[in-house]
Amino acid sequence: MNNDSNGAVRIALDAMGGDHAPKIVVNGAAIAQIRYPACQFTFYGDEAQITPLLAKHKDLAARSSIVHTSERVLADDKVAHALRNGRNSSMRLAINSVHEGKAEAVVSAGNTGALMAMAKFVLKTMPGIDRPAICAFFPTLKGETVMLDLGANVECTPENLVDFAVMGAIFANTVLGVHQPRIGLLNVGSEEIKGRDDVRVAAQELRALELPGEFIGYVEGDDITKGLVDVVVTDGFTGNVALKTAEGTAKMYSSFLKSTFKSSWLARIGYLFAQAAFKKLRKRTDPRTYNGALFVGLKGVCVKSHGGADEIGFANAIGVAYDLVKYKFNDQISARVQLIHEKVLALPAEVKVPAPEPIAAA
Amino acid sequence: MNNDSNGAVRIALDAMGGDHAPKIVVNGAAIAQIRYPACQFTFYGDEAQITPLLAKHKDLAARSSIVHTSERVLADDKVAHALRNGRNSSMRLAINSVHEGKAEAVVSAGNTGALMAMAKFVLKTMPGIDRPAICAFFPTLKGETVMLDLGANVECTPENLVDFAVMGAIFANTVLGVHQPRIGLLNVGSEEIKGRDDVRVAAQELRALELPGEFIGYVEGDDITKGLVDVVVTDGFTGNVALKTAEGTAKMYSSFLKSTFKSSWLARIGYLFAQAAFKKLRKRTDPRTYNGALFVGLKGVCVKSHGGADEIGFANAIGVAYDLVKYKFNDQISARVQLIHEKVLALPAEVKVPAPEPIAAA
Repeated sequence: MNNDSNGAVRIALDAMGGDHAPKIVVNGAAIAQIRYPACQFTFYGDEAQITPLLAKHKDLAARSSIVHTSERVLADDKVAHALRNGRNSSMRLAINSVHEGKAEAVVSAGNTGALMAMAKFVLKTMPGIDRPAICAFFPTLKGETVMLDLGANVECTPENLVDFAVMGAIFANTVLGVHQPRIGLLNVGSEEIKGRDDVRVAAQELRALELPGEFIGYVEGDDITKGLVDVVVTDGFTGNVALKTAEGTAKMYSSFLKSTFKSSWLARIGYLFAQAAFKKLRKRTDPRTYNGALFVGLKGVCVKSHGGADEIGFANAIGVAYDLVKYKFNDQISARVQLIHEKVLALPAEVKVPAPEPIAAA
Repeated sequence: MNNDSNGAVRIALDAMGGDHAPKIVVNGAAIAQIRYPACQFTFYGDEAQITPLLAKHKDLAARSSIVHTSERVLADDKVAHALRNGRNSSMRLAINSVHEGKAEAVVSAGNTGALMAMAKFVLKTMPGIDRPAICAFFPTLKGETVMLDLGANVECTPENLVDFAVMGAIFANTVLGVHQPRIGLLNVGSEEIKGRDDVRVAAQELRALELPGEFIGYVEGDDITKGLVDVVVTDGFTGNVALKTAEGTAKMYSSFLKSTFKSSWLARIGYLFAQAAFKKLRKRTDPRTYNGALFVGLKGVCVKSHGGADEIGFANAIGVAYDLVKYKFNDQISARVQLIHEKVLALPAEVKVPAPEPIAAA
């Protein structure tokens, strides 16, 4: 989980995962090599394809190695199929190398479900963590927010949500450098519904615990982009829907914007004047900036890049893995989770289930 | 549920609900009166405030009446408090008038939770419907999509979801004029998680039923704004989070856009050229267009306007109520739900619980 004695951070790359593999994997690693000179990469995949790509980046080639395999997990492979038949795939071998201590982290742009299942099977969950979660960034008006779970668990217990809050806060601290992250629990705010039982119980527990951050209570969907909190905690069903709904809405606005600038000659001229400013806006809302989701809660750092990422996006995903190793993310979680679990078990029983507001009589 | 013998559609208005009541309620009714001359309005609220506002709209005044009450439900009243103490409130009296057959529909911009609870208590749910749902529009790349439940029920059974699909399809048909609405069930699409049991069972049932539309299967969060379907069905927790996340994302982009046009003199000049085009864009994404959420599944038409709506938005909410009455929305639902329930009960047991994909061995 730590960098090796020479200060090198060894990262295993699934060279065959993603829509544009292995090209963007090698080129992304070349960018990351410049940004993080301490990185040492091992490419898992088809040597015949990787070697010529690597030849174009001498510095990278000098510090990298290739482990050849002709097998790969396809984007549309079923999880069970990938687990059964993918034992010699580039994805699986890259994950194995973390388990075997040959690398500190693995990065893949491949099939999310297969990566999650393989990582969970090979690396196992950390002591004290019941379920791993998918954790990533969400752009906000103020910067970035960490959100989890984004799809690993469709249903969660209050204890899962508490674990997610702890891991999310340490993630925000490690990767975003937020000193005392503010943590919010995603809920519905309308008066008629006070939220599901699991969410309410989790809130009670979070209020009673000493967290690596400040629990500020419930947040609603529209609070996420306001940047009210640094960490948004929710179950994987809600988190996945919220993330994808936001992505869809952003794409819709981007499409509206394009067609607006093309809708008349005056608008086209307007764009010529404003294009420098819009270039900055595109940079600010660039999904590549937010690339790199972590499977938190596993005994090993496993980062998922978006399947459609380009080399810039893939380099950012490597950057996330690098930060997590460098700042000993998993060690921090282990220590904290142990403390939390002791305290949750020590809570008096009556704290655990708050009574719902009565809604019957009129 | 029907318009009266003279063809008039009588609509009860909670004149005191919303941030800008009673002004926008009266002015919104004046706009609606021109659009829908068959409407007859009764304003429930403070006569001393309503009379001078109404005096400015002679045609409206001639066809409207006022029922005075000095009481009102406040925006931050707790649901239980409003139910207990709001029996003479403008909201409650307006709802009562629908129950008593004095009006065909009620429209309020007041406290959502109180309105839902009061409407449910006074009007009751329709035979065959277990739970009412909040149903509204979502803007998409292709136009508008109907989505429900947006917050009435934090947890739903598969049967609730089936009812929502039926009611949503009839809503899309009635209000949007879609002949054979395409219905999608909101789910998470990643391979590792096939969705929650309730969603999977609902999908099986929907496939087996003869619906007032076409069930196309699962949709993900980013499919909503693509306009892949006319009706998106989900539980109230997920629906509320998705709607608010989309609202938050839209506001963030709108804020980014404003600051981009203000970020340099060139950009400001660009805006001058493009402003006519952007005026059209604002109109297309105007939330007022999508104002008017219906509490579907109640014995009576109860439409909720956004609390911050202006007169245009409120007139649109009245328009939704008018369409629902005119096209006998509730009668259509009654007939269809009866059929559906008979068929669901007749389904063979083995259809009901599909086995999840195994994910254990590797």
